[in-house]
Amino acid sequence: MNQSPIEQNGQTANSTAAGGAVQSEVRAKAILAGSAARRMASLSTDEKNAALLAMADALNAEAASLIEANREDLERGRANGTSESLLDRLMLSEARIASIADALKLVADLPDPTGKVLETIERPNGLRIEKVSVPLGVIGIVYEARPNVTVDAAALCLKTGNAVVLRGGSAALSTNRRIAEVLRAALAGTALPPEALQVIEDASRSSVDEMLKLNGLLDVIIPRGGRSLIDNVVRNATVPVIETGAGVCHTYLDASANAEMAAEIAINAKVQRPSVCNSMETLIVHADFAQRGLRALADELLRLKVELRGDERTRALLPEAKPASDEEYGTEYNDYILNIKIVDGLDEAVAHISRFGTKHSECIVTEDEVNAVRFLNEVDAAAVYHNASTRFTDGFEFGFGAEIGISTQKLHARGPMGLPALTSSKYRIYGTGQIRP
Amino acid sequence: MNQSPIEQNGQTANSTAAGGAVQSEVRAKAILAGSAARRMASLSTDEKNAALLAMADALNAEAASLIEANREDLERGRANGTSESLLDRLMLSEARIASIADALKLVADLPDPTGKVLETIERPNGLRIEKVSVPLGVIGIVYEARPNVTVDAAALCLKTGNAVVLRGGSAALSTNRRIAEVLRAALAGTALPPEALQVIEDASRSSVDEMLKLNGLLDVIIPRGGRSLIDNVVRNATVPVIETGAGVCHTYLDASANAEMAAEIAINAKVQRPSVCNSMETLIVHADFAQRGLRALADELLRLKVELRGDERTRALLPEAKPASDEEYGTEYNDYILNIKIVDGLDEAVAHISRFGTKHSECIVTEDEVNAVRFLNEVDAAAVYHNASTRFTDGFEFGFGAEIGISTQKLHARGPMGLPALTSSKYRIYGTGQIRP
Repeated sequence: MNQSPIEQNGQTANSTAAGGAVQSEVRAKAILAGSAARRMASLSTDEKNAALLAMADALNAEAASLIEANREDLERGRANGTSESLLDRLMLSEARIASIADALKLVADLPDPTGKVLETIERPNGLRIEKVSVPLGVIGIVYEARPNVTVDAAALCLKTGNAVVLRGGSAALSTNRRIAEVLRAALAGTALPPEALQVIEDASRSSVDEMLKLNGLLDVIIPRGGRSLIDNVVRNATVPVIETGAGVCHTYLDASANAEMAAEIAINAKVQRPSVCNSMETLIVHADFAQRGLRALADELLRLKVELRGDERTRALLPEAKPASDEEYGTEYNDYILNIKIVDGLDEAVAHISRFGTKHSECIVTEDEVNAVRFLNEVDAAAVYHNASTRFTDGFEFGFGAEIGISTQKLHARGPMGLPALTSSKYRIYGTGQIRP
Repeated sequence: MNQSPIEQNGQTANSTAAGGAVQSEVRAKAILAGSAARRMASLSTDEKNAALLAMADALNAEAASLIEANREDLERGRANGTSESLLDRLMLSEARIASIADALKLVADLPDPTGKVLETIERPNGLRIEKVSVPLGVIGIVYEARPNVTVDAAALCLKTGNAVVLRGGSAALSTNRRIAEVLRAALAGTALPPEALQVIEDASRSSVDEMLKLNGLLDVIIPRGGRSLIDNVVRNATVPVIETGAGVCHTYLDASANAEMAAEIAINAKVQRPSVCNSMETLIVHADFAQRGLRALADELLRLKVELRGDERTRALLPEAKPASDEEYGTEYNDYILNIKIVDGLDEAVAHISRFGTKHSECIVTEDEVNAVRFLNEVDAAAVYHNASTRFTDGFEFGFGAEIGISTQKLHARGPMGLPALTSSKYRIYGTGQIRP
């Protein structure tokens, strides 16, 4: 019913709005999502969960047609010379579809974060004010090639009563289109309006650019993908953004660190899964610890095929390490490469993190409680650890049962985002005729 | 210590950074604020309160020099033909300074929202995860001519452990510069680093433009002012923004509304202070109520010098009303003008609000509990009222003891923002050597 965006902004493109004005696909679908969002907000938890289960069943039932659509993407990708690892991420099999459908059922099982009274205020004039959790409204998701994100992001948004506009990568276009058809057909038999799920098929860059400026139609945009995708969204969006992303994470081995624990944590943070944002890029080592423990730890890292880079003090102890300068210390490798930096104490470690960190996940390994408390207080990051691997920064590892992403900004949500990150709030005020004096 | 923004982004302007690179005033001051922000985060509540009280004392002690600086602005304003009402808002007197200083003391008295454990999670692997409230970091405030905002915004940001970069209007430049000198001199005798308070003196538009793009140096920008200032910030900032502002607020008189209460609420919402964002712009009236109560209410509004505009049904009952079309229904008058719209029921009222409202404050006056609940649930706005004036949407009226602004967006904070809106959170994770399997 909110026609004003249509009237204010005539656009030329490939679909037609009620008023007869020609709309772009992005704008037309965002308007449909907005209209569905108003109905979404009054669905019960049971109605939303039933819709998610219907979506899961439909994915399994339509596995063959999804795999067929996916084959088009794979063939186009192969013809375009797409790498095997990217093709593997894009590929759907019956087993993968079953696992995506299972994930949908798990989302249905999670508690509904909307409709909760978060705060009650009784005023002297008799007004009763309730702060209640509500859906955000219409969420835009901009992401890359993995088709599981299409289902996963849709499920998390719909579970929280939001409408969603999904804009995936062009490499997965046929798959995403078919997923949308299957899911929307499944929704048609439920209380959840199919229009709440919109998939943008315009694979050109301009469809992303348009989404980023849809103030009044999108309530938030969440980018999911690599650095350049996220940077483009952050730098160009006028719609509010939840920034997720980059992790130049550090582990600091303090003078008093237990050598065995230090080695286990450092190795886990580096090699358990180097390609992800919460893995370690730089190991900071107190000079005392370096004297007694760095050689053995470095040998273990080298055995695990980790390339070492370090400052001069590091290279004095580890001659095989390549030199590391500011550029290396600022790089998110996401690979079997580790910077090492030797420091004389906590202040220098905190200063290094403050200079090169991305405020994602930072760890101190120490037996000194005072240093632990100082580190946890003074390091400005979404997650700060004492004696545990930074790899735990994850919605599932935090017990949220879901993860929309890991926020590296400070507004709204910070760190791993579970379902409550997809909600806003409103104030309901109950009066008996109060007026302002 | 975070030098990377300097290194990445050489700028040409009027001040010089540590590294010798020439910096703009905005960038240099944001870097100083960022360095102070790290110290701010570890101040105690007592240290911050002592600093606020020292600031209050200094304002009173320096009243004469503040008034002298203010006189320069007033004279320049008069020479430029500034309106008397604007000059009045700009003007400082001893009484006004005392009242600004008193407001500072009230901020000191408020509870500190930082350092609170918001949530504790115990994981099966023994990890203990605490979510703790922390300052946002560096807050940019872009505002217009009123010098009290300089003090007020500074106080709220510093109380919450943030550093602040203030960019006020050019009309108040001499006053703001002197306020900054006085406050920073006062801070020099406290634990709070004076660098946490930065006032931009570059009154050109380009200093605002630069602030809006200072990702990595500013954590958030809050615009305070009129529509065009806010729109400029929202449309051009790549730093996260908390949007405050526009209110096209409605009051809906349902069929069952108590006529006396309806009139009191409607009149209060319109005329108690028409110039502010939570005042009513459009009165929506159920046809049944219109038959029995609109004439008397309209007569009272006319007596109070309110110009009436309405649709055809309204004008059939109130021939003196001017016609209202979509343009009028979408306008925030902030004046003694009121649109009226007659509807046949709740759905039509909600649809009108959905189409023309700005998601600020919306009210239903009704004796029908079912309609009240539906209205409060279905209307998407920061504050939804049953039987009370929309004029209560205000941090002080909500009992927050402060107000940074009224957020009309859905991320982070929505509605009146008290001190907690100036905080973020971080996760502290306590382990005993846990690694991820």
